[in-house]
Amino acid sequence: MSEQMQRIVLAKRPEGQPGPENFRLETVAMPSPGEGEVLLKVLYMSLDPYMRGRMDDAKSYSTPVGIDEQMGGGAVGEVIDSRSPHFKPGDIAMGMFGWASHGVVKANELRKIDPEVAPISTSLGVLGMPGFTGWYGFNMIGQPKAGETLVVGAATGPVGSMVGQLAKQKGLRAVGVAGGADKCAFAVEELGFDACIDHRAASDAKDLRKALSEVCPDGIDIYFENVAGITLDAVLPMMNVGGRIPLCGMIAWYNSGALGAGQTAGPDRLPKAWRTILVNRLTVGGFIISDHFDRFGDFLAEVGPLVNSGKIVYREDVTEGLENAPDAFIRMLGGKNFGKTLVKVA
Amino acid sequence: MSEQMQRIVLAKRPEGQPGPENFRLETVAMPSPGEGEVLLKVLYMSLDPYMRGRMDDAKSYSTPVGIDEQMGGGAVGEVIDSRSPHFKPGDIAMGMFGWASHGVVKANELRKIDPEVAPISTSLGVLGMPGFTGWYGFNMIGQPKAGETLVVGAATGPVGSMVGQLAKQKGLRAVGVAGGADKCAFAVEELGFDACIDHRAASDAKDLRKALSEVCPDGIDIYFENVAGITLDAVLPMMNVGGRIPLCGMIAWYNSGALGAGQTAGPDRLPKAWRTILVNRLTVGGFIISDHFDRFGDFLAEVGPLVNSGKIVYREDVTEGLENAPDAFIRMLGGKNFGKTLVKVA
Repeated sequence: MSEQMQRIVLAKRPEGQPGPENFRLETVAMPSPGEGEVLLKVLYMSLDPYMRGRMDDAKSYSTPVGIDEQMGGGAVGEVIDSRSPHFKPGDIAMGMFGWASHGVVKANELRKIDPEVAPISTSLGVLGMPGFTGWYGFNMIGQPKAGETLVVGAATGPVGSMVGQLAKQKGLRAVGVAGGADKCAFAVEELGFDACIDHRAASDAKDLRKALSEVCPDGIDIYFENVAGITLDAVLPMMNVGGRIPLCGMIAWYNSGALGAGQTAGPDRLPKAWRTILVNRLTVGGFIISDHFDRFGDFLAEVGPLVNSGKIVYREDVTEGLENAPDAFIRMLGGKNFGKTLVKVA
Repeated sequence: MSEQMQRIVLAKRPEGQPGPENFRLETVAMPSPGEGEVLLKVLYMSLDPYMRGRMDDAKSYSTPVGIDEQMGGGAVGEVIDSRSPHFKPGDIAMGMFGWASHGVVKANELRKIDPEVAPISTSLGVLGMPGFTGWYGFNMIGQPKAGETLVVGAATGPVGSMVGQLAKQKGLRAVGVAGGADKCAFAVEELGFDACIDHRAASDAKDLRKALSEVCPDGIDIYFENVAGITLDAVLPMMNVGGRIPLCGMIAWYNSGALGAGQTAGPDRLPKAWRTILVNRLTVGGFIISDHFDRFGDFLAEVGPLVNSGKIVYREDVTEGLENAPDAFIRMLGGKNFGKTLVKVA
């Protein structure tokens, strides 16, 4: 088969912040589907913070990407060849195609998407893994009760915006933290957060805590943790007795070296954090959404109608062209995206 | 009333490890019970690690002891005067009398003890607050399943020994950590732990982890946290996916300055600990046993018969004389006690 496809591989591991040199665009032969497999042309691919973790050679919840291996991730595309009775050319489906123009996967690892129900890009965002992450952590670990106060970082990102909007739906006070006045305005005006604090305007964690105190007069009952860094430092001492911390990410630390093999400078914040968990009787629950796909149907049943009716809104940050995926990814890690980060591939 | 009693007050706040200078023995007038109150002569008083926290002027789960105020704590004694219909002289009862030879409390804050059922000192240990702490944290937060592996520090202390023995009762592998070969031998031979590691024989957390790895071939599912320090450092990376950490104490840090107002030297262990909680999908649940006294009856109903039948054993470390309480307390904080630390007051 003389047709070709494009993909992006990990050229070398980053130290701290990734740059263009960590990625390489390759042209390779188009694969053919085997028995029970499907070939797709990617329309949109997803860029997510967790991908940064897989670029390191550290123990994580999935195998690191190998050098010269294709970057992984979710994508949605159109079936162009199928050797499965469940898919035919023209079908739209979502799967783990990675950073690539095309891909072959087993039919049972694909999820068919009905483009009549919602724009297909939503299968990677508000109605996909990020939205589901927010829904699961908020409900199952957050155990929300009306009248409580929730704080979430990266408030305009696809996880944070889901969490904040669900909190409002359930009668909680929702306070966001985001990087920039424009994002904070969007969080309050479009997403319906009660307040949003710009962490870039804070000189340090103490300053951020002061700003949060003013908009969380009754303390914090749920801190949905997807950022860590100074937001965690600011929030932890503000947690009310019996508070819950669903923990699914720590983007502020991914590039900082804090998670690397070396030792990080002091002070050692673990003893005081540990004491706060004890004294305030907190529950910190780490979770990884891929463990919980048995609940995906429940999520779609609840949130799909809210998205269709406009009660839950979403924002996308779309970059055109697979070759621009590294730049878009680097921008996202630096907080320069605004909404769910996607690459329009075809 | 010309009779007198003795008590020990906080003379000044310790910096790091307390010494005799932090305490003062006083002789004061014997109090009289008011309406609905009871006067007791203390027979045994309890010394517990949490008391160290209350000597600091830091936010904790209870008000700090004030300077020149009596040290608080549980004690068991004999009623010598009563203005309550529920108690009469000669009754044995347990209550919060603090470090004192006598005390007056409201009858509804006393728990009557039947000396026929078990030695009265057990109301402060295996059948009292420490045993209940172990039972509650192990069951409610630990969510034990037969075949899993549990690790607990201070394994011969009243909390650790309860946790380990309950784990064996429920079909788990129980591994202790304790300070000294004699304690480790006791943990295995008398308490029935599968193994016990002497943290004093470990040069650092890595060395302790190596020793633990050999006796936890399937990793660790439950880490009952009452010590922190190098035990936490050693254990955390060994936690299995879905592991649980009931968190009720951190004795290794109480005297270290790590919890004080100043900043502690690096490295900063929080980012990596936070990542481990995420990657291994751990649940860390802080708890304070006084929140849960509604379950005390369930605890006694389950554990009382096990103690009476000798299926759960206990060890006490008894010091004679109220005036020796500070020394016994300082010894306990240094790990020089062996079993539940008590002072025989009368």
